[in-house]
Amino acid sequence: MSDPSSFCDPDQFITRHINLHLNVDFTNRVISASSALTVRCLQDCLPSLVLDTKDLTIKKVSVNGQEAKFSLGESHSFKGSPLTICLPCPLTRGQEAIVEICSETSPKSSALQWLNPQQTAGKTHPYLFSQCQATHCRTIIPCQDTPGVKFTYYSQVSIPKELVALMSALNDGDFLDPNDNKRKIYRFKQNVPIPSYLIALVVGALEGRKIGPRTTVWTEKELLEASVYEFAETEKMLKYAEDLVGPYVWEKYDLLILPPSFPYGGMENPCLTFVTPTVLAGDRSLAGVIAHEISHSWTGNLVTNRTWENFWLNEGHTVYLERRIDGLLHGEQFRHFKALGGWKELQNAVNTFGATNPLTNLVPNLHEVDVDAAFSSVPYEKGFALLFYLEQLLGGPDVFLGFLKTYIQVHAYKSITTDEWKKFLYSYFKDKVDILDKVDWNGWMNTPGLPPVQPTYDMTLANACIALSNRWVEAKESDLNSFTEADVKELSSHQQIEFLTLLLLKDPLPVSHVKRMQEVYNFNAVRNSEILFRWLRLCIRAKWEDVIPLALKMAVEQGRMKFTRPLYRDLYNFDKARDQAVSTFLKNRSFMHPVTEMLVAKDLNITA
Amino acid sequence: MSDPSSFCDPDQFITRHINLHLNVDFTNRVISASSALTVRCLQDCLPSLVLDTKDLTIKKVSVNGQEAKFSLGESHSFKGSPLTICLPCPLTRGQEAIVEICSETSPKSSALQWLNPQQTAGKTHPYLFSQCQATHCRTIIPCQDTPGVKFTYYSQVSIPKELVALMSALNDGDFLDPNDNKRKIYRFKQNVPIPSYLIALVVGALEGRKIGPRTTVWTEKELLEASVYEFAETEKMLKYAEDLVGPYVWEKYDLLILPPSFPYGGMENPCLTFVTPTVLAGDRSLAGVIAHEISHSWTGNLVTNRTWENFWLNEGHTVYLERRIDGLLHGEQFRHFKALGGWKELQNAVNTFGATNPLTNLVPNLHEVDVDAAFSSVPYEKGFALLFYLEQLLGGPDVFLGFLKTYIQVHAYKSITTDEWKKFLYSYFKDKVDILDKVDWNGWMNTPGLPPVQPTYDMTLANACIALSNRWVEAKESDLNSFTEADVKELSSHQQIEFLTLLLLKDPLPVSHVKRMQEVYNFNAVRNSEILFRWLRLCIRAKWEDVIPLALKMAVEQGRMKFTRPLYRDLYNFDKARDQAVSTFLKNRSFMHPVTEMLVAKDLNITA
Repeated sequence: MSDPSSFCDPDQFITRHINLHLNVDFTNRVISASSALTVRCLQDCLPSLVLDTKDLTIKKVSVNGQEAKFSLGESHSFKGSPLTICLPCPLTRGQEAIVEICSETSPKSSALQWLNPQQTAGKTHPYLFSQCQATHCRTIIPCQDTPGVKFTYYSQVSIPKELVALMSALNDGDFLDPNDNKRKIYRFKQNVPIPSYLIALVVGALEGRKIGPRTTVWTEKELLEASVYEFAETEKMLKYAEDLVGPYVWEKYDLLILPPSFPYGGMENPCLTFVTPTVLAGDRSLAGVIAHEISHSWTGNLVTNRTWENFWLNEGHTVYLERRIDGLLHGEQFRHFKALGGWKELQNAVNTFGATNPLTNLVPNLHEVDVDAAFSSVPYEKGFALLFYLEQLLGGPDVFLGFLKTYIQVHAYKSITTDEWKKFLYSYFKDKVDILDKVDWNGWMNTPGLPPVQPTYDMTLANACIALSNRWVEAKESDLNSFTEADVKELSSHQQIEFLTLLLLKDPLPVSHVKRMQEVYNFNAVRNSEILFRWLRLCIRAKWEDVIPLALKMAVEQGRMKFTRPLYRDLYNFDKARDQAVSTFLKNRSFMHPVTEMLVAKDLNITA
Repeated sequence: MSDPSSFCDPDQFITRHINLHLNVDFTNRVISASSALTVRCLQDCLPSLVLDTKDLTIKKVSVNGQEAKFSLGESHSFKGSPLTICLPCPLTRGQEAIVEICSETSPKSSALQWLNPQQTAGKTHPYLFSQCQATHCRTIIPCQDTPGVKFTYYSQVSIPKELVALMSALNDGDFLDPNDNKRKIYRFKQNVPIPSYLIALVVGALEGRKIGPRTTVWTEKELLEASVYEFAETEKMLKYAEDLVGPYVWEKYDLLILPPSFPYGGMENPCLTFVTPTVLAGDRSLAGVIAHEISHSWTGNLVTNRTWENFWLNEGHTVYLERRIDGLLHGEQFRHFKALGGWKELQNAVNTFGATNPLTNLVPNLHEVDVDAAFSSVPYEKGFALLFYLEQLLGGPDVFLGFLKTYIQVHAYKSITTDEWKKFLYSYFKDKVDILDKVDWNGWMNTPGLPPVQPTYDMTLANACIALSNRWVEAKESDLNSFTEADVKELSSHQQIEFLTLLLLKDPLPVSHVKRMQEVYNFNAVRNSEILFRWLRLCIRAKWEDVIPLALKMAVEQGRMKFTRPLYRDLYNFDKARDQAVSTFLKNRSFMHPVTEMLVAKDLNITA
């Protein structure tokens, strides 16, 4: 199975190790890199190698110390340019060689976000962070930018000495740069083989605080206290995860809390999870995102999707594990409640994409499709729904955990496809093949829209949300006085999120209703960004004009909420706010990650 | 912790991959090799590398294709000569390089046994096999010959085309040698990192027969039918092992049945266990040796002793697992019976070495000690006894299996020390530290002789053996008629072995007794070599002269039993037979493995 998102051919050769020297230049927003790839040839008489690059300048290539000819192919809109390296001597099967490339990034590298001091909490120092998933590593260094290839790495990073560098690896010390006494060199080693999308770098005025035996929280000092409080339960979750699926092999589990422009909730960079600051709710109500990132230490980082078409293997299993941890922390009813919430997310995603859109397939075809444009909740929640359905079909949580544990053990350190997953499922449940044969695999895997079957859920915690949302939907003007503060006081923050999610699935409420909701529940004042985000979208849909400026202010300036595509879509669909949405976007795009910026611009019909 | 049996320093650099080209020359008994080692530097500014060699001619060395200076150090009696390679450019931490060495073996390479056609079953073709454990890989190729370093390998082996080559790896096809149409090239890949001692090669007139989904039996065609029958239960044992400790990661589990001069019962070469033909008892009664070699696929080959001083980590755990498989095959009473038999073996070994000999420590000091000379049952049976004792102390077989499984998962693909094992034991049983603290660790680990405590055993199956052996020890001449054929008819072959083992622990029996034993039990006619071996030693100790020629004949010519040190020691101690022992040895030494030959010569006080 070849990777449609990469120019490389892992059947010809694989990368086993990368030895990196990076020089971070904030003035020019450029990283100069020397990347020495240890490659192993898998074919006879290989005359050349192809690596992925995008927006890179290639300065020099050598193979085993001998200068080599190279050429950059035509640039593809999102895949970039293949770098073809002529081998001075053809390689034979089983032979390894050191391929060293000197290159430079472009300031528009889609993996790198360069922040000016004003975009940071401290307002004094610049800041740089990377986001390689899915196909952006090639904008930092030339590599086999496919999750089907895994390698170890060692890195030496030269940065201004007043800053701190961290990578998705173990720290291996630092010292003054012998070539420039204003700079320091930080060293890192990652001895567990990882795919390219898990290479990560951050440089900034970072401080760290140890919060557990294997965890340090890193962030700008302005956010340190809040972060230390918010993520205090990390070690407990790590231990639950180990109890569920076996030992944690990455040694360290550090957390990095980023500036608001980080485009995701979390990114499972090994040894150093990247987290959005919007989870700093002040009451640990959103720290659950860590359960998800921790789970990736097994599903995704150890057992990896071979191509992005198999992304559900990463995310479906990780959501499943995350919810098993939820179950251990808050009980089985809560796990079912979150599972049901996931089904709602899936309905949302299917509605957004359209129920016949092939990108809502569990295993989509990504030939000539940009992985970023295809990103949605589908692999997460359709994947989870399949696993939850199978759990119920095959004998319950304990039985299914046995499968998951063995699945991880067998495929650890490998990259696999959905077919291999299914084959293993059948071999593990060899006594239940008759049951498995009744599953509508084609309906689940290769059909757009909602799955053919819905799992069953314990409804205890959900019913309260459903009841309350129905009350609001059915309420007439004259009923509005029946709502009181007490309605939501009894609901957990997760239930409040679910309540709002349910309302977002219905027709827009009248303005009178949302005004009354604000009066009694005062969602405008909530710090939990997941509640706030849904609440503001509800207001926008209700066409409550008063709230639009508030929404944009919340989203951008306070850093409590992120620029997101659903929010902008809602704004865009609200006639009066459209111009405002566009102008706010134009004003604030410098705070946004390049990928988010590109996608929102697309949504708003703005050409860059 | 450095390895006293190697000149290499794995703190300076490690080997990650070896790409081998071997040319096997039967005429001159020489292998010419080109070995390309991918090495990773772990220190700053490394100017040179040291590899282990012994009896090798080094023709040429290059680093990344550039010729490099090298020197062979003074030869050490058993460690060989360090090969120091000057690096054309010093390596930095994290950097990898390709170090290629052209070398030639000596005909006296202690890893290689070259058999002439007369020494094979077919009598037509020559035969070559290797035995690298513990420190003999360095007599085939220059390498970091320490179990603390693990690497993958790829190999291309040129041999006469009428023969077949196999290695401890997966077959990757074969083709006519383009340089010589009388030769063929066989290719192999081992993608799981292994220590040097698990490199293995065999070349001969071999035939294979598939006996299971992942198992082919290989041997000369004369032994094929018998081998297929004897090892029919291999897949069943593999499955039991997987049920106990998790998935088998090596893909293939083939068996090679060697000529009689193979010096061990079995050798756990990955993907291809080497087995002595003396287990071909014709009734599967000795196929249990396979349970041991299968178990090494986890303990030893996945989790490896970092140095030979920690050999008990390999063997103690493997014997423990082997006996868990025994328990699944034949019941818990049988497991206890075998465990008790192991204690007897340990008593034997302690008696042979002497109870104050530091080589009977569980963790011996091997500085300036030849690993081969230190080899005994101690790491196997003292190691097992410790684990069996801990099993009983910590909550029984199920609880202890949980530990073993996690121990393997955590340390898979690594090489570890006894300290790390103990630290992990304490962390796994963190709720039972009070119990662990009461263990006399110094007595178990660092004290010669028998362990400070004996585990308890279910005696059901053992009591019959004890009763019968006591009857023989206590019998007067006049009692001999009371023994009948029925005494042993009720005992399993394992119990018969135990019965004889018990007698070997006592003073020699009178000749009258062993003569009567032959009359009623007819051990001379038994095909099970473990019974025969003990029986003949019993006869020799009884000074029953008639049996000496028989013993030697059995041992050597029929290939039913092996030259062994205990047998020769008994012969040596039997005055009248000493000359005969020496002359038989001199006559037959060409059948013996070089290592066995060296050790027996030492026992017999013969200088080569």
